[in-house]
Amino acid sequence: MNTHLPDPIRSLALMFRALPGVGPKSALRFVYALLKSPKEKTEQLAAALLSLHDHVKSCTGCGAFTMQSPCSICRDGNRDGSVLCVVAESRDISTFEFTGEYRGRYFVLGGLLSPLDGTTPDKLQGEQLAALIETQQNLKEIILAFNPDMKGEATVLYLTKRLAAYPVRITTLARGLPTGADLEYADEVTLADALRGRRQVANQKQGQSAI
Amino acid sequence: MNTHLPDPIRSLALMFRALPGVGPKSALRFVYALLKSPKEKTEQLAAALLSLHDHVKSCTGCGAFTMQSPCSICRDGNRDGSVLCVVAESRDISTFEFTGEYRGRYFVLGGLLSPLDGTTPDKLQGEQLAALIETQQNLKEIILAFNPDMKGEATVLYLTKRLAAYPVRITTLARGLPTGADLEYADEVTLADALRGRRQVANQKQGQSAI
Repeated sequence: MNTHLPDPIRSLALMFRALPGVGPKSALRFVYALLKSPKEKTEQLAAALLSLHDHVKSCTGCGAFTMQSPCSICRDGNRDGSVLCVVAESRDISTFEFTGEYRGRYFVLGGLLSPLDGTTPDKLQGEQLAALIETQQNLKEIILAFNPDMKGEATVLYLTKRLAAYPVRITTLARGLPTGADLEYADEVTLADALRGRRQVANQKQGQSAI
Repeated sequence: MNTHLPDPIRSLALMFRALPGVGPKSALRFVYALLKSPKEKTEQLAAALLSLHDHVKSCTGCGAFTMQSPCSICRDGNRDGSVLCVVAESRDISTFEFTGEYRGRYFVLGGLLSPLDGTTPDKLQGEQLAALIETQQNLKEIILAFNPDMKGEATVLYLTKRLAAYPVRITTLARGLPTGADLEYADEVTLADALRGRRQVANQKQGQSAI
């Protein structure tokens, strides 16, 4: 970053760079956009930042970020208490809620296993998950909904072992071809997953039903 | 954006979306990153935002954002006063300074001509530029350093007309192939520009010299 830039611009740009996916050029663009917009806009953003940590806490039920604990999903009596979807981060809940397909409950693990990055099992909420399962009488299924990568796989292995003693079905998200994909461009692992997880077509007798 | 998100998260994400190039997913990622980092980090960002407009002003000389007016470049006696580089925005100065190739002075026009977006000549600092040229006795060249697009071209046309009366050379940035480009993938306009602006190779007598 250039040395002739005024200090407030440079230091704010450096702070923006700490946000995920923001490079030096984007960070400077943010600062200049704020400088060109009315002072009030910047003040509103500062006020929103200051109130963030004061008003947002972790839900005592699922661990999601919420204003009121337990959160709206944990309080919702219409949610299916027999299914628990375990996600890595609070933000993943929005992703699943956006599909409108899932009506069960959630649990935020707080990350994915990655010993090299310092994320060992004790940094995750695995024990709290086990404690929750013990108290939930009607729980039948736990969906481990992690990214389909090394960390996600490692976390699935760890949790499957840790939760083996409980009489619940443990599932993971389906692997296969994403909708709209082109067979020609699919990678070998995805194709192998798609073959391994092949399903009988719906209008036949033994067609699989959705959850 | 999901309705079950806590209000402070949603409203902060909406404010982040107002920054250039930030979509709904990036905005939410920013908010969650801040929530996961210590409260102090967010407070520092808020403080930096609040001090931005208070400490940064426009340079009376060139119009660039600066803490002290005139800015460090305008105050620098070692700068070549015979060349003036006219840029659209203050941030463009960093881009040129970063190359280390330019030792002249700058002038910030405050935008590019775009009548459809409401940027008419009176919104730009064209008259201030004309006034500056009149007072600068030793000024020999004005480089119009705008983006090579429709708005940039329109602004070059407007300024060339407006400044025609002054005894200065008006130049624009060279058009041609960017370094490392592949002829096969260059578009027709760029190739035509590269042909039109062809230069004699350097070791021959009439080779062009750098500015």
